[in-house]
Amino acid sequence: MTTLALGVEYDGSAFNGWQVQPDRPSVQEALERAIFEFLRVETPTICAGRTDAGVHATHQVVSLSTEIDRPMQSWVRALNTYLPRSVAVRWARPVPDDFHARFTARSRTYEYWILNDPVRSPVFEGRTGWVFRPLDEARMREGARYLLGEHDFTSFRAAECQAATPVRTVTRLEVARVGSLVGVKIEANAFLQHMVRNIVGALIYVGTGREDPLWIKEVLEAKNRSVAAPTFSPSGLYLTGVGYPEHDLPRETGGPFGRTVFENRP
Amino acid sequence: MTTLALGVEYDGSAFNGWQVQPDRPSVQEALERAIFEFLRVETPTICAGRTDAGVHATHQVVSLSTEIDRPMQSWVRALNTYLPRSVAVRWARPVPDDFHARFTARSRTYEYWILNDPVRSPVFEGRTGWVFRPLDEARMREGARYLLGEHDFTSFRAAECQAATPVRTVTRLEVARVGSLVGVKIEANAFLQHMVRNIVGALIYVGTGREDPLWIKEVLEAKNRSVAAPTFSPSGLYLTGVGYPEHDLPRETGGPFGRTVFENRP
Repeated sequence: MTTLALGVEYDGSAFNGWQVQPDRPSVQEALERAIFEFLRVETPTICAGRTDAGVHATHQVVSLSTEIDRPMQSWVRALNTYLPRSVAVRWARPVPDDFHARFTARSRTYEYWILNDPVRSPVFEGRTGWVFRPLDEARMREGARYLLGEHDFTSFRAAECQAATPVRTVTRLEVARVGSLVGVKIEANAFLQHMVRNIVGALIYVGTGREDPLWIKEVLEAKNRSVAAPTFSPSGLYLTGVGYPEHDLPRETGGPFGRTVFENRP
Repeated sequence: MTTLALGVEYDGSAFNGWQVQPDRPSVQEALERAIFEFLRVETPTICAGRTDAGVHATHQVVSLSTEIDRPMQSWVRALNTYLPRSVAVRWARPVPDDFHARFTARSRTYEYWILNDPVRSPVFEGRTGWVFRPLDEARMREGARYLLGEHDFTSFRAAECQAATPVRTVTRLEVARVGSLVGVKIEANAFLQHMVRNIVGALIYVGTGREDPLWIKEVLEAKNRSVAAPTFSPSGLYLTGVGYPEHDLPRETGGPFGRTVFENRP
């Protein structure tokens, strides 16, 4: 048996999220169909982070096991010929048989990109969120500090979230501006459902001046979803990294806009 | 009568170019339909640069004249409610009645963005061209120098180009890299049909090492389209600026990726 990890990139606009659902296009379905075309055997896949509808990934990690023997270098090229243009396999690596894209992962990194402009912008349509009021990224940075470390993130958790515990450890939270784009980069051991989009929604309340930076701390401590800001749009969210410290795998890529802004770790 | 200049942005992927054509979606048709919804009068528009199918603009300039009186500040908001998400009016300014978006313009600026990566990238799909062989941007820059100034650009002109003369003056030609993206910024008094995409095609031949930088000079001097490289894909091309030195209008914006790379003149 061969077990592989695949680095997968996708434009989430065309999909109803990662996970296979009846009668709705999903990234998993597109990928598993391409794998079937390549191997001619149904092969289930596991991903590191189940992204929601409209959410993108530049560095999703997917694991699978197969009895079929194919040269490692043929995986990327072959799957990319069968995949739609909205999905690509960026790399393929052999991993030990007990590797599991979700359970073996020790960290995930997301970037959220906001177009901060009084007028909407078609060339960023579907690729960023949009805030027309001016954002003060220094205030956002100040508010973001309160989220670093281990906390109960109940206030930033979707009602339908099925995680066993609301405790997560945020190890990195950066806010950067590139012209009219504001980027938020966040790394944690794992994320609750809608956690990044809920955090971004709250940081935007701080950035526009509607709330003070200290309000982030109050929201966190309230452990109550209803005191926070609304979930922000999926279209600016990118899964950009997954950490498997015990394995020699690519660590992160960076989103479409932030490749030179954040200090990416290769 | 009121004459206006509009700054228009669009994602060209959805359109068969700027110009109205029977039974094919065009940016002009979408814009004129939105203007009709706003004014309830058919109003023809003129653009600074007629972009081809699939070509984007962050700073197209459009002029129109109307007898209908509307507050200047309502133009942007009203038209954007009627326009599809792939088109937006970024600004509106009153101009003298003899202003003509095409004939009054003294310069146009385009950016071309290339994804330079061994594997295709879905988050850049439709927004960049793609070259999988490594590009040496220093070589491209060296080749680009030969195109600066006034020249006969017959070698970089589409067969169907209807311009009266093939002579154009290139006033600026920069090549920059941002991670895996290579950007080419070019300014000229005006452009021949496919001129930017043909120049980019030739610079890519130099960047991959297939041709020497000096070959650009030979191609230019040959005044023969058949000696140059093929026309490169429209999906990486953005009209990013138009110059009207005698009028107080915004000068350029910059494409989606290069806002921090090239020295933009406001």
